Amino acid sequence: MNYGIVRRVLGIMLIFEAVFMIPSLLIAIYYKQEDMYPFLFSIILISLIGLMMYKIKVENKAIKIREALIIASLGWILISLFGSLPFVLSKSIPSFVDALFETVSGFTTTGATIVNDVEKLPKGILFWRSFTHWIGGMGILVFTVAFLPAMGVGGFQIFKAESPGPTADRFVPRIKDTAKLLYITYLSFTAIQIILLLLGKMSLFESVVHTFGTVGTGGFSTRVASIAAYNSTYIQVVITIFMILSGISYSLYYALIKGKWKDVLKNQELKLYLGIILVSTILITINLMTTMYNSVGKSFRDALFQVSSIITTTGYATVDFDMWPAFSKAILFMLMFVGGCAGSTSGGIKVIRILTLLKLVKREIQKIFHPRAMIAIKNGENVIQSETASRITSFCALYFFIFVLSVIFISIDGFDFETSISAVATTLGSVGPGFGGIGPTRTFSEFGYFSKIVFSILMLLGRLELFTIVALFSPSIWKKQG
Amino acid sequence: MNYGIVRRVLGIMLIFEAVFMIPSLLIAIYYKQEDMYPFLFSIILISLIGLMMYKIKVENKAIKIREALIIASLGWILISLFGSLPFVLSKSIPSFVDALFETVSGFTTTGATIVNDVEKLPKGILFWRSFTHWIGGMGILVFTVAFLPAMGVGGFQIFKAESPGPTADRFVPRIKDTAKLLYITYLSFTAIQIILLLLGKMSLFESVVHTFGTVGTGGFSTRVASIAAYNSTYIQVVITIFMILSGISYSLYYALIKGKWKDVLKNQELKLYLGIILVSTILITINLMTTMYNSVGKSFRDALFQVSSIITTTGYATVDFDMWPAFSKAILFMLMFVGGCAGSTSGGIKVIRILTLLKLVKREIQKIFHPRAMIAIKNGENVIQSETASRITSFCALYFFIFVLSVIFISIDGFDFETSISAVATTLGSVGPGFGGIGPTRTFSEFGYFSKIVFSILMLLGRLELFTIVALFSPSIWKKQG
Repeated sequence: MNYGIVRRVLGIMLIFEAVFMIPSLLIAIYYKQEDMYPFLFSIILISLIGLMMYKIKVENKAIKIREALIIASLGWILISLFGSLPFVLSKSIPSFVDALFETVSGFTTTGATIVNDVEKLPKGILFWRSFTHWIGGMGILVFTVAFLPAMGVGGFQIFKAESPGPTADRFVPRIKDTAKLLYITYLSFTAIQIILLLLGKMSLFESVVHTFGTVGTGGFSTRVASIAAYNSTYIQVVITIFMILSGISYSLYYALIKGKWKDVLKNQELKLYLGIILVSTILITINLMTTMYNSVGKSFRDALFQVSSIITTTGYATVDFDMWPAFSKAILFMLMFVGGCAGSTSGGIKVIRILTLLKLVKREIQKIFHPRAMIAIKNGENVIQSETASRITSFCALYFFIFVLSVIFISIDGFDFETSISAVATTLGSVGPGFGGIGPTRTFSEFGYFSKIVFSILMLLGRLELFTIVALFSPSIWKKQG
Repeated sequence: MNYGIVRRVLGIMLIFEAVFMIPSLLIAIYYKQEDMYPFLFSIILISLIGLMMYKIKVENKAIKIREALIIASLGWILISLFGSLPFVLSKSIPSFVDALFETVSGFTTTGATIVNDVEKLPKGILFWRSFTHWIGGMGILVFTVAFLPAMGVGGFQIFKAESPGPTADRFVPRIKDTAKLLYITYLSFTAIQIILLLLGKMSLFESVVHTFGTVGTGGFSTRVASIAAYNSTYIQVVITIFMILSGISYSLYYALIKGKWKDVLKNQELKLYLGIILVSTILITINLMTTMYNSVGKSFRDALFQVSSIITTTGYATVDFDMWPAFSKAILFMLMFVGGCAGSTSGGIKVIRILTLLKLVKREIQKIFHPRAMIAIKNGENVIQSETASRITSFCALYFFIFVLSVIFISIDGFDFETSISAVATTLGSVGPGFGGIGPTRTFSEFGYFSKIVFSILMLLGRLELFTIVALFSPSIWKKQG
């Protein structure tokens, strides 16, 4: 383990975090609110610690798999620990565990909250809370699209040409190239959505905050009622569109920029993703029409919004879907596990993994009749290697093991089944709200500290594709350089 | 497809069923109850149809994979359809869908019931209801231990030496040899448990019925309160022991008979199975002691009984565990998926599959650090082929796909989350009772006909290891002889 370079990179991350806090400080100064000094103090403290970590001399600058894993996981944890400072210091969220939960939820783009009365928070804090979504979303894009394949951990070598493969000795320069294009797309989405929301007569502040929540597929709002507070079909439609766009793999936008239309149209993951959205929306629309609403239009709009919000693991709500009939809720619950496309800012298992599993099952059925046949599994024109298939199935297995064990842990708090199960699903899947005690109009505040820590770990696990965090507990990672 | 031989074998099955109904008829005659003529009529009808199907001349007697699949799945369906006749004709269960649900639940050794007042049923009907467990358990042993490997479908070639491999052209004589030893073990367990229950002052009739429910890991009782009705620690202990024994692979008893003690002691699946029972029991005991009961002894006995009952997918209850704290319920819920050992009469995913998944996950973590290493996955001393691993992961994936889709279907009935989710888990896993609306003191009677049919299909799917039924929907099976 090359501790020197790890310390140095983590130092850089902290300096970046301090810089990212400046807009919140400026907003706090502008509104002259009580969060001014907390931000000032946090920025000074974080940048000092960051500089100290950065300054220590490092002779060996090699980042190999071990170092990359440590940086990715410890980085996320460190950023969350320090990012919670303004919440604690401003007494917006006095308890440290609560503040940590909120910050992890922000950076992991989950959007689960413990704040019961969000409208009372000072503006700087509100901005920082949502800005963590945006920063986290950006971090995830680099992590999943450039970092993970380079570490040979991801399961999806999306930018295969760009990634240098599992040796990973020289992946830093590559990241820069890929990341640049990603950031441009990400920034463009952000700018366009802000403008569109402004056109819908949302205030500048709220437009920016909700755009952060959308493009980062996070879900923090400035309102207790989430998007329902605006009661505007236009805003609902704009956010729906940008949620769906944000759940699509950024590698497809990359392909679009390069003029490869056909690659996008033929993409199986995209087709299944849109297919699931369509079918789920139709089923819920019919269910709502025949039970709750008389209007087809309203049923369809609310169904589409909530389906998009859950499958992209954003978590915004235009309606208290916890009051919906059981059939609609069951569909939404299932979507919490599905998640969006790989290489997007969304969480969950990801559509491509579900697709691969379905193909594996199909092959197994064919094999009953042709036991000796070698049947290749393809993703479009590319054959999925058995290595990759095994990685995907292991991922899904681990996802369910973690899910089941966490439900047991969480149950110590004694909440009902629906609350416990959806709380684990929604945090592990980076969604945000769930059902019952954590429905869209409620928060995680009633859980005990133990559960809140479990949820924070689940959010990190889900966000960092499980293995990154799990590997930390493997003895191999702490061995001397081998 | 060789329809002739399929028809002939199905005919034999029906004749057997008619013969198996005779004890119930004798009991009905002995007690002079209203189920006498229904049994007489059913026996005559079923044996006539069976004979007609058997008598038709068959020139080609070859049973290949397709025929074996059809026989296994259609056989179970046909036996259930005809087996429900006495329920309908005696008006014990007037609705055909309800009667079919009850019969499928019996033959699949699930033990889920729609009968609200079981104590009012006539004796012959009560006997038949539990006898289906015993017949089903026997059928399952042959199916999983001899039939499945022969079809190359099972995933576990337990009796590898005995099974002729995937070609399956000559597997009928092999089955006979294996089956004989299985039946002797099964019959011995049955005899011993009946004697032990009689010693506990249970009546002969109830001893026999509860033994059927135990060795078949079914769970039908003659009492609404299940085993709680007897309020006897001795009976509780006897049934606990026999439930645990019935969840162990019969191949280990086979090994014991052959004097291979070491094979049994080294068996990893057995260790994990007993380990899960131990850990779950301890956790629930602590949870019960600190919340509901003051007595360590009672907490431990009830915990052990319920854990054994759920993991072996039996479904007997000595207490209304739906009233237990959330933590204990979450553990029991998880056990519904685990199930017992492969090659036993229990249902669920099976411990060996869980074990293999855990090993696959562990290998994937090792591979992060050693990307190019070839790491073999072993079950004891045998290397698990990638073919087998892929079969196991596909099985688990299919299990969860079916689970999720069924929860959505079932939710149309509008029951709460806990009820819907545990109802699907308990039927797919052949357990029996669940939580909430289908807790151990309640029944499936309140579900609609659509849901009851879905549950019946789930019981068959779970019992026949999914692929057997799923393969029926594959176009390949209906092709002409190839």
